Amino acid sequence: MAVYTEVTDEDLALFLGAYDLGPVKSLKGIAEGVENSNYLLRTEGGTFILTLYEKRVNEADLPFFLGLMQHLAAHGLVCPQPVPNRAGQALGRIAGRPAVLVTFLEGMSVRRPTAAHCAMVGEALARLHLAGADFNMRRANSLALSGWSELFETARARADEIAPGLAALIAAEIDSLNRAWPRDLPEGIIHADLFPDNVFFLGGQLSGLIDFYFACTDAFAYDAAICLNAWCFEQDTSFNVTKAHAFLDGYARVRPFTRAELEAFPTLARGASLRFLLTRLVDWLNVPAGAMVRPKDPMEYVKKLRFHQHAVSMRDYGWQS
Amino acid sequence: MAVYTEVTDEDLALFLGAYDLGPVKSLKGIAEGVENSNYLLRTEGGTFILTLYEKRVNEADLPFFLGLMQHLAAHGLVCPQPVPNRAGQALGRIAGRPAVLVTFLEGMSVRRPTAAHCAMVGEALARLHLAGADFNMRRANSLALSGWSELFETARARADEIAPGLAALIAAEIDSLNRAWPRDLPEGIIHADLFPDNVFFLGGQLSGLIDFYFACTDAFAYDAAICLNAWCFEQDTSFNVTKAHAFLDGYARVRPFTRAELEAFPTLARGASLRFLLTRLVDWLNVPAGAMVRPKDPMEYVKKLRFHQHAVSMRDYGWQS
Repeated sequence: MAVYTEVTDEDLALFLGAYDLGPVKSLKGIAEGVENSNYLLRTEGGTFILTLYEKRVNEADLPFFLGLMQHLAAHGLVCPQPVPNRAGQALGRIAGRPAVLVTFLEGMSVRRPTAAHCAMVGEALARLHLAGADFNMRRANSLALSGWSELFETARARADEIAPGLAALIAAEIDSLNRAWPRDLPEGIIHADLFPDNVFFLGGQLSGLIDFYFACTDAFAYDAAICLNAWCFEQDTSFNVTKAHAFLDGYARVRPFTRAELEAFPTLARGASLRFLLTRLVDWLNVPAGAMVRPKDPMEYVKKLRFHQHAVSMRDYGWQS
Repeated sequence: MAVYTEVTDEDLALFLGAYDLGPVKSLKGIAEGVENSNYLLRTEGGTFILTLYEKRVNEADLPFFLGLMQHLAAHGLVCPQPVPNRAGQALGRIAGRPAVLVTFLEGMSVRRPTAAHCAMVGEALARLHLAGADFNMRRANSLALSGWSELFETARARADEIAPGLAALIAAEIDSLNRAWPRDLPEGIIHADLFPDNVFFLGGQLSGLIDFYFACTDAFAYDAAICLNAWCFEQDTSFNVTKAHAFLDGYARVRPFTRAELEAFPTLARGASLRFLLTRLVDWLNVPAGAMVRPKDPMEYVKKLRFHQHAVSMRDYGWQS
């Protein structure tokens, strides 16, 4: 939630010179997205989001992200669409940063999702997985099992500052997941960050998905586990089995889970917990002076991890297969 | 530039229940205003700014601010208008904070104002002063000469951390201004913070003024001095006499300066510099841990103050009266 790079009237005029969107009516920096700077732009030609990619995004990945948004929209998923300029280019530069204009999506995220919301998110996630099937680019998941040890090493020495025993807990979990992690599950394009912030609703219906900047190629069921973690725990981190059932059922109505996916699910959910525990831990320990972003609490994901460590089968998630 | 208080879908639904603005289409936290949280709200009924007043704003002042915006708009000045609910009330509450919906103003602020922009701002400031003439509320300027000593004491001990000799420079300036400060200048409603951020342009014309949360009753020419400081120095703090002339000329075309105002101007400009130097100094020394706002450089206003200390008459501002 931040605006890292200021866009001046002059920067904007230079960038929009390559478009035919008419005179600018307003530009507001918005508190959306953690990795990039985002502006809400209104011109005579419409309303758009202007995104400037900051240092944490690898420029080489941008064609994947932009191509994916175009591909998904062409396959019926509602998500922001890159807007090409007169020369057919969507990727430009503003103030030294890669910049893209995308279409504006109406809707609002929900703070406390109901089971009905969870069911709609499950359906949408499965639709995303199916829609990505014939997308012809790949992107390795840089935050997958293979990357967790390395990430942990950057925070290991100070992890116990947050909670005594945390370093040992994470080390043991990485060992355990290295042994148990499933291979050969169905994979394809996953969103990898489908938190409530990134899902919009309008009039009680899901109206679109945003923020594809963690999207990559990985196991579909792992994406479902990330999503279940984000949507089916209450704010006190108690697990809501009704919401979990609604989410899994919504997903399976569109794309049925395979037997291997269901067997692996508790392990995948542990991995999904560890992944967010690790990035939150690193962010928590590395808040720069003068930071404009408040880091999220890593302990929330310790609690979710502990829940999944005690899960044995899909019955623990309200799901009888 | 921040969103201090999060507004959830539930908070918003509760607040908008008292209005007839139709279904919500989107709500985006925007990076506008330093003191308050601001959201851009789109409903079927239109586009609005939703402002939540944070702790630095005194709730008892809100009727003054809201009444002033209504008064100025009724007198032809383009500025945000509070939108009353069905019960005729503009002031409500969201998430425990006083909250107001105001109309959305089109336009964009300029980063590097030209002399033409300065002339338009001068005119608009004078119009504001005239339009406020028959507004029937008063608000003392809490950041006037009488308050500077007190403000300085909160930062005095640490001022030299920013620049050696800064505490002595400020102490001497307060003494000097206490002796030289003009009395009985024409006064009325002033904006008191008309920086480029708070002035919108559209198609090369001034389209409106925003952020009236420092407005108060004080000398008109002091407001002009604040504005001159904000608009007529370059980014390297060199003084642009062409812009100053354009600004003063624009102002005087609408409301001619009195002889006393012109004589007092260098002193008023020193005071206007000291006022922003002091608040920036205090903010700089008191950045809270985890702050989401980057404080502005106090030294910019030391340089402006030094310029005015060497000014003798209006000729130093490109103005021959």
